[in-house]
Amino acid sequence: MALPLRFVPPVVALAGLLLPERALASAAVMGGMDMMPVLLAIVLILVGAQLGGALFARIGQPPVLGELLAGVLIGNLGLLGWHGLEGLRQMPALEMLAQIGVLFLLFEVGLGTNLAQMAAVGTSAMLAATLGVIAPIGLGFVVALVFFPAHHPLSHWYIGAALSATSVGITARVLADLGRTASREGRVILGAAVIDDVLGLLVLAVIKGVIVAAAGGRAFDAGSVLVILAKAVVFLAVAVVLGRQLSKRVFQLGALLPGAGALLPFAVAFCFLMSWLAGLVGLAPIVGAFAAGLVLDEVHYRELRARDSAQRDVQALLGPLTGFLLPIFFVLMGMRVDLAVFGSGAALGFTVALVAVALASKQACSLGVLDRRTDRLAVGLGMIPRGEVGLIFASIGAGLFIAGEPVVTPLMYSSVVAMVAVTTLLTPPLLA
Amino acid sequence: MALPLRFVPPVVALAGLLLPERALASAAVMGGMDMMPVLLAIVLILVGAQLGGALFARIGQPPVLGELLAGVLIGNLGLLGWHGLEGLRQMPALEMLAQIGVLFLLFEVGLGTNLAQMAAVGTSAMLAATLGVIAPIGLGFVVALVFFPAHHPLSHWYIGAALSATSVGITARVLADLGRTASREGRVILGAAVIDDVLGLLVLAVIKGVIVAAAGGRAFDAGSVLVILAKAVVFLAVAVVLGRQLSKRVFQLGALLPGAGALLPFAVAFCFLMSWLAGLVGLAPIVGAFAAGLVLDEVHYRELRARDSAQRDVQALLGPLTGFLLPIFFVLMGMRVDLAVFGSGAALGFTVALVAVALASKQACSLGVLDRRTDRLAVGLGMIPRGEVGLIFASIGAGLFIAGEPVVTPLMYSSVVAMVAVTTLLTPPLLA
Repeated sequence: MALPLRFVPPVVALAGLLLPERALASAAVMGGMDMMPVLLAIVLILVGAQLGGALFARIGQPPVLGELLAGVLIGNLGLLGWHGLEGLRQMPALEMLAQIGVLFLLFEVGLGTNLAQMAAVGTSAMLAATLGVIAPIGLGFVVALVFFPAHHPLSHWYIGAALSATSVGITARVLADLGRTASREGRVILGAAVIDDVLGLLVLAVIKGVIVAAAGGRAFDAGSVLVILAKAVVFLAVAVVLGRQLSKRVFQLGALLPGAGALLPFAVAFCFLMSWLAGLVGLAPIVGAFAAGLVLDEVHYRELRARDSAQRDVQALLGPLTGFLLPIFFVLMGMRVDLAVFGSGAALGFTVALVAVALASKQACSLGVLDRRTDRLAVGLGMIPRGEVGLIFASIGAGLFIAGEPVVTPLMYSSVVAMVAVTTLLTPPLLA
Repeated sequence: MALPLRFVPPVVALAGLLLPERALASAAVMGGMDMMPVLLAIVLILVGAQLGGALFARIGQPPVLGELLAGVLIGNLGLLGWHGLEGLRQMPALEMLAQIGVLFLLFEVGLGTNLAQMAAVGTSAMLAATLGVIAPIGLGFVVALVFFPAHHPLSHWYIGAALSATSVGITARVLADLGRTASREGRVILGAAVIDDVLGLLVLAVIKGVIVAAAGGRAFDAGSVLVILAKAVVFLAVAVVLGRQLSKRVFQLGALLPGAGALLPFAVAFCFLMSWLAGLVGLAPIVGAFAAGLVLDEVHYRELRARDSAQRDVQALLGPLTGFLLPIFFVLMGMRVDLAVFGSGAALGFTVALVAVALASKQACSLGVLDRRTDRLAVGLGMIPRGEVGLIFASIGAGLFIAGEPVVTPLMYSSVVAMVAVTTLLTPPLLA
């Protein structure tokens, strides 16, 4: 008789059945938290994300955009006079699930990333990426300055930097859909997309360092910029070297224990430990999750995997976790877009200008293409889509303050999300 | 080029890498929640649960007990002078993850439960179960009355009722380990364990109804007891009939959408929708989760499953979710045990008495065995283990109040958890 290790009889459900008071419902596990709004919110989000994603898949667009727009819809029902769902935007339970989902996502991405492949991209990609970072920052700064002259200049630079990163994921999907991944243009675009992300992030890191210094009343100096850069590079190097050792040890420990089913708990524990260590040295936990994926080698957990009845690897085990948690992240990001801001001419104008700059500035990439046989226009167009990176930057900026004002205001946040959606929507028709 | 639908480039991790301020770390996803303590707590819980579970598996005990005791250890480091981890007991993030984990567990249990099999157990099992419920309630009431004469009588009855349910899961495991599942005694024990749970819960439901009425100043009346009973039975019947229709519709909708990967989100949404509906009519959400599993038939989602690359069914998809979330539940339940209460003679005496009553009262079951060829002593001993049901009742009782005092005090809570652990530990040697 094969029974799961943790088997709970039907009676536990019946226990609940027979506790008829509403107050008890929330005390059903351990007294305290009211799960009712969380349950309904998750049902709404999962079904909304599925419907939105399926709709976008059917019209040939990345499903993630459909999830984002499902969130925008849910978050803005207030415009139709119904404000019942606005509380979801700030529900702590949803935020925590979304954050855990992003950690798992970054872990997954790290597992799928190959450092050697990243280093092997050519000079064209490197040049295209560099130009494709400088142009959006400059043009983005100008647009933000024109529309919000009263804001702090660092806020303008931040908006520019938020435009810098091409979404590798969306770009890769679009190229795959067009069957051009292996083409000359495809390889330059993908290589440049990876590099421009790194460059854009270096710029963002510096701007952020300066913002925090400015917010603290400290003056800007070139030395601190270098410190930020050095810290970032050193951390990743140390994480990669020591993390590989840590990974071996963690899974060796796991393999010493008897029984099956230990691979997932140990993989999650390793991911969260690395995330926590990243936070401990002052970096974002998602870096640690990514580094954990980067250093975790299938060889480390071969023995634990062999004990799993279905021989699933860590990616397969993470699938259901991200399948449950990531829609919550994308829908929540969409919910926080306030469509009402687009009622003002300034916001609408700013969004249109931001989209125009996002489209135009990446055409600078084509100047970096040295090889004459490569279609320069295709490279410039292929670099257009912004994605999750822009979303995450927008939300980080919303949490940063200079002189009591957020670096990314609610209006700017909504415009950046709109820019992400529009650039992604426009790329396939432009490229095709 | 096969890319996951939701692919995020490494740069998202690097984004975090380059945001060097600690304040930004917590704002890495969307500004606000500090994930650092949650991450460390989960690492600690997952590793602790694995170590505890493995230790218990090695000595031939159910791993779930090891997880529980790992929690007791973590929650009581204060006795060694280190109070750093006591905050974990009440951390809302952990509580929410634990509650979601229990919903998934009940969903899983419902998926594995067969109503027809439950109905097919014989008269002996029915009689044994009935006697095995009456005796623990009566003896438990007496023990609670003797040790806590100043408490409300309903508190005494509650303790008695909390002793009534034999853990089907642990019993089944013990029998399987001894190779006696298919024996005459084994079948009577398993059948009786399922039935006594239902009966015990009916009693608990009534006691709770009375407690809530008493707390509200209303007098006890026989009519309200019948209403509670009727409500419970009607809800389950309606949930089973309408839920089956709802399940068909939900997965029909899912199958209309294009793309793979929709099975898990729809299954989770269905489970949470049923949980929410249960809460809406005033019952515990876990009932809905169990009912969702009961009515969800593999036939409903055949089409969605066929689209999954690994053809996984809902149980296989839920595995990683419960693998991540259930250790949090069991460790948290253990953490809330306060070992310090056992420093008082009364608490120690109460626990010893509770264990003695738990062991002795189930021997009443043997009187219900009509078949002379069945070993009556074995049936009585086999019914001893209490489990997750006792834990959940203890925590529900901790959230109920009469005259400003919890029905299950912290001392009683700790004693009930100790009783669960000791009865489970003693059964295999006694039976063997």
